[in-house]
Amino acid sequence: MLETLKHELWKLHLELPKNGLVTWTSGNVSARDPETNLVVIKPSGVMFEDLQPADHVVLDLDGNVIEGELKPSSDTASHLYIYRHRPDVNGIVHTHSPFATAFAANGKSIPVYLTAMADEFGGPIPCAGFALIGGEEIGQQVVEHIGTSPAVLLQNHGVFTIGKSAKAAVKAAVMTEDVARTTWYALQIGQPQEIASDDVAKLHYRYTNVYGQ
Amino acid sequence: MLETLKHELWKLHLELPKNGLVTWTSGNVSARDPETNLVVIKPSGVMFEDLQPADHVVLDLDGNVIEGELKPSSDTASHLYIYRHRPDVNGIVHTHSPFATAFAANGKSIPVYLTAMADEFGGPIPCAGFALIGGEEIGQQVVEHIGTSPAVLLQNHGVFTIGKSAKAAVKAAVMTEDVARTTWYALQIGQPQEIASDDVAKLHYRYTNVYGQ
Amino acid sequence: MLETLKHELWKLHLELPKNGLVTWTSGNVSARDPETNLVVIKPSGVMFEDLQPADHVVLDLDGNVIEGELKPSSDTASHLYIYRHRPDVNGIVHTHSPFATAFAANGKSIPVYLTAMADEFGGPIPCAGFALIGGEEIGQQVVEHIGTSPAVLLQNHGVFTIGKSAKAAVKAAVMTEDVARTTWYALQIGQPQEIASDDVAKLHYRYTNVYGQ
Amino acid sequence: MLETLKHELWKLHLELPKNGLVTWTSGNVSARDPETNLVVIKPSGVMFEDLQPADHVVLDLDGNVIEGELKPSSDTASHLYIYRHRPDVNGIVHTHSPFATAFAANGKSIPVYLTAMADEFGGPIPCAGFALIGGEEIGQQVVEHIGTSPAVLLQNHGVFTIGKSAKAAVKAAVMTEDVARTTWYALQIGQPQEIASDDVAKLHYRYTNVYGQ
Repeated sequence: MLETLKHELWKLHLELPKNGLVTWTSGNVSARDPETNLVVIKPSGVMFEDLQPADHVVLDLDGNVIEGELKPSSDTASHLYIYRHRPDVNGIVHTHSPFATAFAANGKSIPVYLTAMADEFGGPIPCAGFALIGGEEIGQQVVEHIGTSPAVLLQNHGVFTIGKSAKAAVKAAVMTEDVARTTWYALQIGQPQEIASDDVAKLHYRYTNVYGQ
Repeated sequence: MLETLKHELWKLHLELPKNGLVTWTSGNVSARDPETNLVVIKPSGVMFEDLQPADHVVLDLDGNVIEGELKPSSDTASHLYIYRHRPDVNGIVHTHSPFATAFAANGKSIPVYLTAMADEFGGPIPCAGFALIGGEEIGQQVVEHIGTSPAVLLQNHGVFTIGKSAKAAVKAAVMTEDVARTTWYALQIGQPQEIASDDVAKLHYRYTNVYGQ
Repeated sequence: MLETLKHELWKLHLELPKNGLVTWTSGNVSARDPETNLVVIKPSGVMFEDLQPADHVVLDLDGNVIEGELKPSSDTASHLYIYRHRPDVNGIVHTHSPFATAFAANGKSIPVYLTAMADEFGGPIPCAGFALIGGEEIGQQVVEHIGTSPAVLLQNHGVFTIGKSAKAAVKAAVMTEDVARTTWYALQIGQPQEIASDDVAKLHYRYTNVYGQ
Repeated sequence: MLETLKHELWKLHLELPKNGLVTWTSGNVSARDPETNLVVIKPSGVMFEDLQPADHVVLDLDGNVIEGELKPSSDTASHLYIYRHRPDVNGIVHTHSPFATAFAANGKSIPVYLTAMADEFGGPIPCAGFALIGGEEIGQQVVEHIGTSPAVLLQNHGVFTIGKSAKAAVKAAVMTEDVARTTWYALQIGQPQEIASDDVAKLHYRYTNVYGQ
């Protein structure tokens, strides 16, 4: 069931360690199938290199396991909360990527110092409040604070990204760490100027409407 | 003798350079066989890529070499001291992983700024005092300071981690460097707030009792 | 058409992720064929690992697409502006490499603290002003500020490098990040002294006239 | 001629990029054959991945090329100066490794904050003065400042390491960057205490006399 989506998710999960966004078993990707509203997610506590397409767990939006022999990610309730409140979202990624999480540890959002950030995010990456793991509190923080951004930081925790597909959410996760890293480097050697908000808007419009094939 | 354990140790030793925890020949993993109380450990001064399963040295808890043609790790006496004083421990890892060792160089413990740290460690990673290499003084420092944590820093030196298996100790070593790195990054851009101790306890309880398969 | 140049560009594009200069689809290389004045450039928004030699787009210096089914890089107008104003240039590279872009985010040039920088660049790497993406404004900034250097920073954006061949421009891009990184590290532990300008000139002369085969 | 030594040098040269000590063509290794006093060295400006055993250049201690069709490294005169003044040395490595070079850019030696540094170096890594490239001035700086250490920094430039074999010098180069990196990290989060000099001596004695096989 949903074999294509499981295979896509399996490949996308491998992008997380490849891009240095996760360590050991931390982090996860989920995808919603737009036709059935079923969600496919990583099983809990499995190493990325051991993960197989068939290991993924399929749930409905209320958290009932529809298929899968493994226990789903401990972030499942939060993923489902986001899908229920954001019908535009079909992919979610969670990471502890180090530079972005350094901002999160300080409860700081990431300002727009870089054109690459204006391109992908269209504004600052906001920082949500602290929430315990296991329930849907993290999902509530994400929905409340992410706004129109594809990414949000979670205080003392890490990063959630969303997208209209799982691949788009993975791209946002990769770009979050990329801009967090360069921003962090920039802050050590001076006080960068933020890009003017109308320029941010122009860059974001071009990137999302003209850039690419 | 203990071929399965040697093979497991050989594979776990390769995780150390793969995760950036060691350089050249530094660092080592040992395992205790719970049935015989015999300990298998890395030979001294051997490159990780040259190490073979049969190269590992088998000793009893008093330091008598039971099998092996190579000289055991110069940290052997300290590993054995830990095994004698911590019957719950069947795996030990030593590394000079760079971010954690930066805290050790300053004699500083690592506070709990990250949920990932609450999850794995259940509290700060303490820093033990300075000890010379070769005897069991390092083992004494580890036993005296590690408490209920799976990891401890050694002043001006590096990291020791313990676990109920060698794999658990390797996981703790990987996670130590991961949280040390993000904590270090966080400290360069602000002064993070520690997670409240009751939240640390809840996170650690969930991670050790609910998380995973 | 220009199959050799496309193949060379395909291989050079792979040097960008290999050297940590780009993330996801960002960054591009172009080359001018000295005989025909035609320019070959990366298509817009294509992952480096998916790129094939035949995907590259061929344009004349006025921006007319001569061959290629994909849309050219959104930096094409700026590349062409540079080729029109710098007949000595046959290769251009654009990256968001993290350490160099940290200087760019602060609007700071990179001073000559390192003999490696004197060798390759013969002086500081200047920082040009801010420009929006898509038109030739970036090319104007590059031409106005790069002077005799093979590299220039773009405020809040990234790096452009030029060379008498695409390979020379790629080398300059790799060396820009290398010297930016070490300079950044040096600035965190002190205030380095700049190398005297006559020594910079001697080092650069030797490197460009004696060094190599 | 000296085919074994050329093959060893070819393999050792590949350790430099593998350990992140060099970029593009920078850096080199040489070895002296103790029987003939001939020196084998990297050719100038050749990429490490393109280098073949037969590409190495053989010279006598006066700089006469005995064998080899390529131009020798531009650091050759300095290598030969070191060999002439240090009969105990049969291997030399030069790198621009980033963390160690950050200390060099500031004209700072690296103090002994780490047992790994006491082990390998037996004291601080000193920093020599500035010298131009191409002649034997760098060799003079090395000989004057390196003392009993296997490594020395060159102001505004990089690192030279020496050893009784080329492999020992490569190991010293790898360990130099390793301790430079952790020391640099340590300095960003506090002011580490130096290890007492008698403890440094004990650690170094044990490491050079007891450690290893």
